[in-house]
Amino acid sequence: MSRSPSAPERAAGRVPRGPVALIGVGLMGGSLGRALLAAGVTEVRAHDPHEGVADQAVALGAATSAAGTLAGACDGASCVVIGAPVPAIPGLARAALAASPDDCLVTDMGSAKRGVVEALTPAQRERFIGGHPICGGERSGVAAGRDDLFRGATWFLTPTAEARPMLFERLHAMIAAVGAVPVAIDAAVHDRLMALVSHVPHVLAAALIHQAAATAPEGREALRSAGPSFQDLTRVAGSNPPLWADILLSNRDAVVEALADFRGRLAEVEGAVARGDRAALLTFVADAAEGRERLRSGGDEPAGEAWAIVTDIPDLPGALSEIATALGHAHINITDLALQPHPPGGVGELVVRVDGAAAAAEAVRLIGERGYTVRAAPV
Amino acid sequence: MSRSPSAPERAAGRVPRGPVALIGVGLMGGSLGRALLAAGVTEVRAHDPHEGVADQAVALGAATSAAGTLAGACDGASCVVIGAPVPAIPGLARAALAASPDDCLVTDMGSAKRGVVEALTPAQRERFIGGHPICGGERSGVAAGRDDLFRGATWFLTPTAEARPMLFERLHAMIAAVGAVPVAIDAAVHDRLMALVSHVPHVLAAALIHQAAATAPEGREALRSAGPSFQDLTRVAGSNPPLWADILLSNRDAVVEALADFRGRLAEVEGAVARGDRAALLTFVADAAEGRERLRSGGDEPAGEAWAIVTDIPDLPGALSEIATALGHAHINITDLALQPHPPGGVGELVVRVDGAAAAAEAVRLIGERGYTVRAAPV
Repeated sequence: MSRSPSAPERAAGRVPRGPVALIGVGLMGGSLGRALLAAGVTEVRAHDPHEGVADQAVALGAATSAAGTLAGACDGASCVVIGAPVPAIPGLARAALAASPDDCLVTDMGSAKRGVVEALTPAQRERFIGGHPICGGERSGVAAGRDDLFRGATWFLTPTAEARPMLFERLHAMIAAVGAVPVAIDAAVHDRLMALVSHVPHVLAAALIHQAAATAPEGREALRSAGPSFQDLTRVAGSNPPLWADILLSNRDAVVEALADFRGRLAEVEGAVARGDRAALLTFVADAAEGRERLRSGGDEPAGEAWAIVTDIPDLPGALSEIATALGHAHINITDLALQPHPPGGVGELVVRVDGAAAAAEAVRLIGERGYTVRAAPV
Repeated sequence: MSRSPSAPERAAGRVPRGPVALIGVGLMGGSLGRALLAAGVTEVRAHDPHEGVADQAVALGAATSAAGTLAGACDGASCVVIGAPVPAIPGLARAALAASPDDCLVTDMGSAKRGVVEALTPAQRERFIGGHPICGGERSGVAAGRDDLFRGATWFLTPTAEARPMLFERLHAMIAAVGAVPVAIDAAVHDRLMALVSHVPHVLAAALIHQAAATAPEGREALRSAGPSFQDLTRVAGSNPPLWADILLSNRDAVVEALADFRGRLAEVEGAVARGDRAALLTFVADAAEGRERLRSGGDEPAGEAWAIVTDIPDLPGALSEIATALGHAHINITDLALQPHPPGGVGELVVRVDGAAAAAEAVRLIGERGYTVRAAPV
């Protein structure tokens, strides 16, 4: 999770020069508008389907202008960022692609990615690159926005092979400029990850509350007398039912798969307890301890000096997406990413910065084994 | 959870006058010894099966003397407190009952209660009253003990109908003296409650880690990039495998029942997601929100003035246990409890203090409907 302290400052010089359009200005959109303006973007347009919200965004300093229509917001834009419930995103993305210039990036902030990406055509995916910032707040709505909401947060990106490298570069810089950590990841991997770390835990919290509420007097005692752990565990239970119903449904395959897997694991433990199998329970708990250590390992190494990784990339679709996703899956943070322009049909350069010699060596290995010419040097 | 601020001070005058024996001096026993000495107990004897631990307890100020044998610790004691793994408790309780005077209380601090209580005879249950303080620490062992470990913590007590009232009174006062909140509760209810708030959540945390560890690269990403909620949820996973294997097994029936119930709830959600049943998911999340509010309700009312509830109790076994447990199940905290001596065969008085007129009225109702003569007045 380490980042070069100077990355946002470096990136700030490369925030989108043209207008940024926010389609949907709630907590996330309202925070992004504030953060972009703070980072030096000069024009942020707000559009929101709810009466008065776009004007409120302007009044709150989250946008420089309100647009009455999506097309009006997208006209001449450099970037369009969609903040909307996942089911609405493909339709909004198509409308934004149609209404924006041919060199305009369209992205989103939805919590599920595969369905959105698959709903678009390969041609649409040239300019649409999915995103998902991992942050939030207790309250929702534009008024709850903060310009530091994204600082230090992972912001997943799911560029497909069709994504235009220069638009991915623009998106990466914009996200770094608001202080987030851009991490490229395959859309299906993203969705399985979210099922694991967010969607299944949310279901578990709600199910625990259901179980407690169904048992009296134990249930009430559970929240009142039995220490903070149960409260912590169930803190998220019941928040925003329409949002969560949509989140679970928009990641249907991964959630069903993860829940079925989870139930199987519980059945194993239940069987071991029922038959008094102490050895199996010892293994179950000890393996969790070992797994937890393994999952945590490597997260605390010092950042180390910055290295530049320079890759020759032919002008073929997918090279940048492939390289960025490979580094993302390997947990190598790209603190800065820049494309050196190249003539059509020729060979260009991708320069990414990573922190530390170990990360640099691993990046060179991963890029090299994919057939690219790559070199690294400390900067 | 409100308590009269003066309760510990009042109770301090009634801490056990005779020796307290600690059988097993780890984090809990070591903390209790410190807290009892701070509360005015003059003699605390430590006995521990591990070489040198009892002497260490003395050196650390957690006991006034070390006893080489359990019988030596219990000889002439006023209270014996067993801090040991649940499976060892019945045997230690029998040994302590045999080695201690006929007017000595024996209690424990184990995390499961029904099995312990049922392993003893009715005659043994006259002097053995189970207990379970709901607190702990990151570290274990006598050196990690603190004299404020129990302050504000719920300390469940499971007096059976056979429990001698004067020994329950002594136990209640001792627990209040170390700053904990004594709550009488049926042993089976206690065990179901612990399955719900502690044992099932612990299994869920470990199972989540297993699931994460089984999926790469997603699993590692789960702990490193995806925000603090997954880490919070899985913080307890894998801690102390032998302890947790024993805890799960010692509460076998309740854990199996709760896990089976929980799996059923997950299967319902999984089915709703799989068939795209948004209405069912809305209900599931909304009901959790409603259940959570209901479980939390009533926890924040101001303490109110102290009331004394005076009950005539005939000299029959079980009256005090019945009354204390009824109030415990109704979440009425007893901030002080005293028995007025009565001639054998006659009628005595039980005086309990509770905070607030509402709690007093509810206590009078609960005690009255059990056939006792009861009256209440502010103090």
